Amino acid sequence: MKNFSIIKSRRLRSTPYTDRIEAHGVSGYTVYNHMLLPVTFKSVEADYEHLKKFVQIWDVSAERQVEISGKDSAKLVQLMTCRDLSKSKVGRCYYAPLIDDDGCLVNDPIINKLADDKWWLSIADADVIFFAKGLAAGHKFDVKIHEPNVNILAIQGPLSDDLMAKLFGEEIRNLKFFNFKYFNFKGNNYFIARSGWSKQGGFEVYVEDNKAGQDLYDYLFEYGKEFNVRAGCPNLIERIESALLSYGSDFDNRDNPFEANFDKFINLDSDVNFLGKEKLKKIQKEGVSRKLMGVKIDHNKIDMYCEKTLLDDNNNIVGYVRSAAYSPTFKKVIGIAMINKPYWDSKHQFKIDINDKIFLGTVCDLPFI
Amino acid sequence: MKNFSIIKSRRLRSTPYTDRIEAHGVSGYTVYNHMLLPVTFKSVEADYEHLKKFVQIWDVSAERQVEISGKDSAKLVQLMTCRDLSKSKVGRCYYAPLIDDDGCLVNDPIINKLADDKWWLSIADADVIFFAKGLAAGHKFDVKIHEPNVNILAIQGPLSDDLMAKLFGEEIRNLKFFNFKYFNFKGNNYFIARSGWSKQGGFEVYVEDNKAGQDLYDYLFEYGKEFNVRAGCPNLIERIESALLSYGSDFDNRDNPFEANFDKFINLDSDVNFLGKEKLKKIQKEGVSRKLMGVKIDHNKIDMYCEKTLLDDNNNIVGYVRSAAYSPTFKKVIGIAMINKPYWDSKHQFKIDINDKIFLGTVCDLPFI
Repeated sequence: MKNFSIIKSRRLRSTPYTDRIEAHGVSGYTVYNHMLLPVTFKSVEADYEHLKKFVQIWDVSAERQVEISGKDSAKLVQLMTCRDLSKSKVGRCYYAPLIDDDGCLVNDPIINKLADDKWWLSIADADVIFFAKGLAAGHKFDVKIHEPNVNILAIQGPLSDDLMAKLFGEEIRNLKFFNFKYFNFKGNNYFIARSGWSKQGGFEVYVEDNKAGQDLYDYLFEYGKEFNVRAGCPNLIERIESALLSYGSDFDNRDNPFEANFDKFINLDSDVNFLGKEKLKKIQKEGVSRKLMGVKIDHNKIDMYCEKTLLDDNNNIVGYVRSAAYSPTFKKVIGIAMINKPYWDSKHQFKIDINDKIFLGTVCDLPFI
Repeated sequence: MKNFSIIKSRRLRSTPYTDRIEAHGVSGYTVYNHMLLPVTFKSVEADYEHLKKFVQIWDVSAERQVEISGKDSAKLVQLMTCRDLSKSKVGRCYYAPLIDDDGCLVNDPIINKLADDKWWLSIADADVIFFAKGLAAGHKFDVKIHEPNVNILAIQGPLSDDLMAKLFGEEIRNLKFFNFKYFNFKGNNYFIARSGWSKQGGFEVYVEDNKAGQDLYDYLFEYGKEFNVRAGCPNLIERIESALLSYGSDFDNRDNPFEANFDKFINLDSDVNFLGKEKLKKIQKEGVSRKLMGVKIDHNKIDMYCEKTLLDDNNNIVGYVRSAAYSPTFKKVIGIAMINKPYWDSKHQFKIDINDKIFLGTVCDLPFI
C-alpha cells in the first residue's frame, strides 16, 4: 500500500495530547469523530507485542462523549438503544448498540450513567449527537445535549493495575470491570473507568480539564519507567484477535444488530420503549441470512482499504472480509467478515484475491482468543 | 509541520476513483464524511495556479448525499433549514444552512430538489443522515432516508465549459448556475449541476453508476488534453480567497448562522416551520457579538491544525483564525476568523503567534476576491 500524508486542519481536531504523542513517535493517524486518532507508533506488530506484555498510554480523545442531561434524559437514552437500561445504576458503564427506526445500527457506544438524569455516551465514529438532537426535538423532550470537553487517556496492558496503583493508590485495583469512580492524584480528581479497547486489561481516564490531563500524561510516563511504559493506541491485531468491533469497519448503518452478533444486548421482551423494536422482533422471528464471523487466511500480509470478497469453489459469494491483519499468534491473516448463512459452519474453504494472487481461508467463530 | 501517514481502513471509505487519483499523483488526503478526500497533488500552490488557468477533474465523492423521499419529505427538509424552500423548484440547487433546536449550525449542504417528494442533501462533513432520521422518527414522518451510491466528479476551472461541451454538446454551456439536468455521453445519462467548491467556474457530476463514472473520468482526461486538464481537488488557497466556508473548520455546531454570515439564507419572516426559529429571532433582535471575517497577516507561511488566537496591543482577544493559507495573489497569509465585535472595523491591527514568532495582521471583509 502506498503511503499518503494526512493533511491537518481545524476540522480534523487535534487533542490536548497531540504534541505529546508526536514527541513519543506516533507515525500514522486515522480520523475518528472528526479527530486525530493514532494508529501506529513503531509498527502495528511491535506495538502489539509491547501491549501484550507491558503497559501503554493511549490518546483516545477521539472517543467523544455525547452528554445527555435533564428530566427526559433517561427516556431519550433508552429510546436510542435496544439494551434495557431500566435497571441501570449510577457508576456503571453499559455497552449498548444504538438502533434507528429501521432496526439498523447507528453506533455502539459505552453508555456511562453519571446520575439518573445525566449520561455520557462514549461513541464510536459517527455523529450520534445529531441523532439525539433530532429525536429530542421531534419528541419535544426536556433535555440538554452537548459534547463536553472530555479527552480520554487509556492505560492498557497487563501492567496497568501496577502503574495506576502507584499513582492513585491500591484502592484502584478493586475497581470492577465497567465501573467508574473518581480518584485523586496530586490534587486533581479524575473520572476513571475499568474499560478500554483492548482485552489486555486497563483503565480509561475521562479527563475533563486539559491541564490535569497533560500533567497526568507526563506523570504516567515518569512513574511507569519500571513497567516499561510506552505510548500506544488501539491495536489492529489485538482488537481483531479479541473481536472488538469497529463501527464503520466491521458493521455500519446498513446492518442490523443480529447480523453484528449483538444478541445479548437486544432486550425485545422488556417493557422499555426503543426505536426499531417491532422491526427487530420481525428480524428475530425470521432469522438473519448473514452474520459477522472470523476468518483465517493462509497468508502473511493484507492491506485493507475496502471490504474484500470471499468466494467458494463455484465462485458463489461466501461473504466479505471487512477488517483483517496478520496475526503473529496464529501465523495467519485473521479477519472479521460478514458471512452468508450457507457458509456459517467451518467446513467450507474460501478463496480470496490479495494483490492479484489467490489465497485460501476458512470461516471460524469469534473471538479468536 | 511534521508529516504523518494516513492509515487506510474500510471505515475511511475509498471511492470509485481512488485508484485513478492515486495514479494521477495525489499526495495528501483528508477525511470527510468518513471518506478519503484528496487535498493536494503537486503542492497546494501549484494546484492553485493550475486551477485558476485551466481545468481540473476532482474526486469529491466525499460530498455524500442524504436522500429524503416520500410524502412528508418536503416538510422534513424544511424543518432542518432556516432557508424558506416553499417556492423551491425541481432542477434547482439551494445552498441552505441546517439548524438545530438551539439555533446552532448543523451543516451547510446544497439541497438538490429532484422532485416534489425527493431531495438530495449534498452535505459537508457531518452525519446529517442521523439528524434527519432522529427528526423523522420523532415526528413520525412518512419518509425514506438513506445514503445513495452517488460519487461526485467535479470539473472546475475557467476551461470547464470548453471541456464539458466537447463531451456533452454545446447545450451544456446554457446550464445556469445552481441548476441541474441530465446530459448524455456515450449512452450514459449523467446528473450534472453547474456548481462546485471553487469560484473558477465548473460543474459537478452526480455519478450514480460506478462504471459510468470511471469511464467518464478517463474520457475527461482523454478529451481534456488540449485544455491542459489535470487531476485536482478543492484548493485551500482558492477557497479561502473566495470565502467558501468549510463546516468544522470555519464554523461548527457551537456557532449560529448569523455569526457565520448566513444572513441571506435565514428567512425568519416566512410562514414555514423550521427548528430554532424562535431562537434565531431572539439572536437577530439582540445582535451577535462575534462573526466570521477575513484576516491578512504579514507572513509567508502558516500551518493550521487548530484555531489560533489574535490579540490586540493590550493582549485582549480580537478573535480566532480558523483556516488560513499563504496567498500568492495577496503575498500575505490570508484566513477566515471569528472576530469579536469591538474589532469588526478594519482599523485594528492584531498580533498572532506563528511558530513562536509574533506577526502582525489586520481584519478585512469577506470574500477577499
